[in-house]
Amino acid sequence: MQDYPSHQYNYRVYYEHTDAGGVVYHSRYLNFFERARTDWLRDKGIIQSILQKKYNMVYVVTSADIKFKKPARMDDTLTVTSQLTKIKRASMEIYQEMYSQDDVLLATVVIKAASVKADTFAVVALPEKIREDLIK
Amino acid sequence: MQDYPSHQYNYRVYYEHTDAGGVVYHSRYLNFFERARTDWLRDKGIIQSILQKKYNMVYVVTSADIKFKKPARMDDTLTVTSQLTKIKRASMEIYQEMYSQDDVLLATVVIKAASVKADTFAVVALPEKIREDLIK
Amino acid sequence: MQDYPSHQYNYRVYYEHTDAGGVVYHSRYLNFFERARTDWLRDKGIIQSILQKKYNMVYVVTSADIKFKKPARMDDTLTVTSQLTKIKRASMEIYQEMYSQDDVLLATVVIKAASVKADTFAVVALPEKIREDLIK
Amino acid sequence: MQDYPSHQYNYRVYYEHTDAGGVVYHSRYLNFFERARTDWLRDKGIIQSILQKKYNMVYVVTSADIKFKKPARMDDTLTVTSQLTKIKRASMEIYQEMYSQDDVLLATVVIKAASVKADTFAVVALPEKIREDLIK
Repeated sequence: MQDYPSHQYNYRVYYEHTDAGGVVYHSRYLNFFERARTDWLRDKGIIQSILQKKYNMVYVVTSADIKFKKPARMDDTLTVTSQLTKIKRASMEIYQEMYSQDDVLLATVVIKAASVKADTFAVVALPEKIREDLIK
Repeated sequence: MQDYPSHQYNYRVYYEHTDAGGVVYHSRYLNFFERARTDWLRDKGIIQSILQKKYNMVYVVTSADIKFKKPARMDDTLTVTSQLTKIKRASMEIYQEMYSQDDVLLATVVIKAASVKADTFAVVALPEKIREDLIK
Repeated sequence: MQDYPSHQYNYRVYYEHTDAGGVVYHSRYLNFFERARTDWLRDKGIIQSILQKKYNMVYVVTSADIKFKKPARMDDTLTVTSQLTKIKRASMEIYQEMYSQDDVLLATVVIKAASVKADTFAVVALPEKIREDLIK
Repeated sequence: MQDYPSHQYNYRVYYEHTDAGGVVYHSRYLNFFERARTDWLRDKGIIQSILQKKYNMVYVVTSADIKFKKPARMDDTLTVTSQLTKIKRASMEIYQEMYSQDDVLLATVVIKAASVKADTFAVVALPEKIREDLIK
């Protein structure tokens, strides 16, 4: 999709993620995608709790476009890939895919996120250091 | 948007919905939207646990396109509107909006859902009776 | 149990609360109990988001002893009762029961909660005004 | 506490687990404890989704007595220990502790669980093979 490197995150499905339909409840896919992004940031040295304390900055998701292809089930081991696809002064776009242990594509999402002040939620430019870490 | 009637659902934000950013965690908007759809179905006499037992049928969300406009916060009273915008043999599209107690638009979503067999998740046509209930 | 008045809270079970066992996931009973306490406080004029802003104070649960008697299921309408059973300078004990729509006792919990500073989590005495509201 | 061996499970705190108080929402400790038990069972070759299919059996938590000692926070890496403390024909007791990355004890829980039929929730004796796996 882009020249930015892709990141991979593995995750196990537990009872708490399933619903009475016997599969993972749909909104929890967003939780798995968020963990994968957090882990992707951590790999680049960006720790969100430190961002908040040091820069008074948090990321907020401004849009999420999810396609659910196949259900994930109890005890599945999922792999989530994360790839930066666009980056601007105060926002970015990330494309993510979720696969089962059998390499079946379960879901995709396009996430748009903005950097905002932690207290007022006003949009704020990404610190240059963070921006450099993101694209490396 | 369409001629199908709109449904309204009210909901309170509790501690469990918030995150360390002080606002409602993004994936929980999907939970609120789902509750509103469940309530909308219930108003039409469609009870999902009965659908599953009687018709061996469940709805699955096949895509969700969410725009997050403003954060919802602890103790807010939210209103979610639900409107059927398309209906086909085995699928439908629903448009939903979320408002704060001050009538500020917080989020919108376009949901696509399919009717599937509860055990195999194979796509199955909506029973005619359910279809009639949905559009009335 | 005590002379303090009891409070009642009604709640519907939605898909998001169930798990692949077909019943409400066990930790979510604690969420339902917490909502009931929040509502009980609200009835006494105690709004937690205002407590936090005005007094820099939050309640934290210090222990929870839950008995699960019968499973709650999708589409059930639950009633949760809340009763203050002890109150001290910086802590209180609350006894709660959960009933199904058929008046079957599903679960009970004894909650101990402490009042702490919102920023440091140091134990702090309840403001006298709040204490009076709690026992009235 | 007992002669049964102890099991260790590591877990990271993500945004989804926190609440507006800035710490992990109290009911989510039960989720972490449940994951640790699932992992402990998996280590013994007991996979819950297979139990359900093969033996029509699920575990249900019948009581949980939790003490919350210190808050867990965003980005913490938690360690949960699990130890079988009693086992009977159709029930067992497990003692669990949660520690922060600095070896601070954050919470403890005593869990009682019963084995029940997956469809009727009637109590059923543990299969002898499972019982042997549990105590080894």
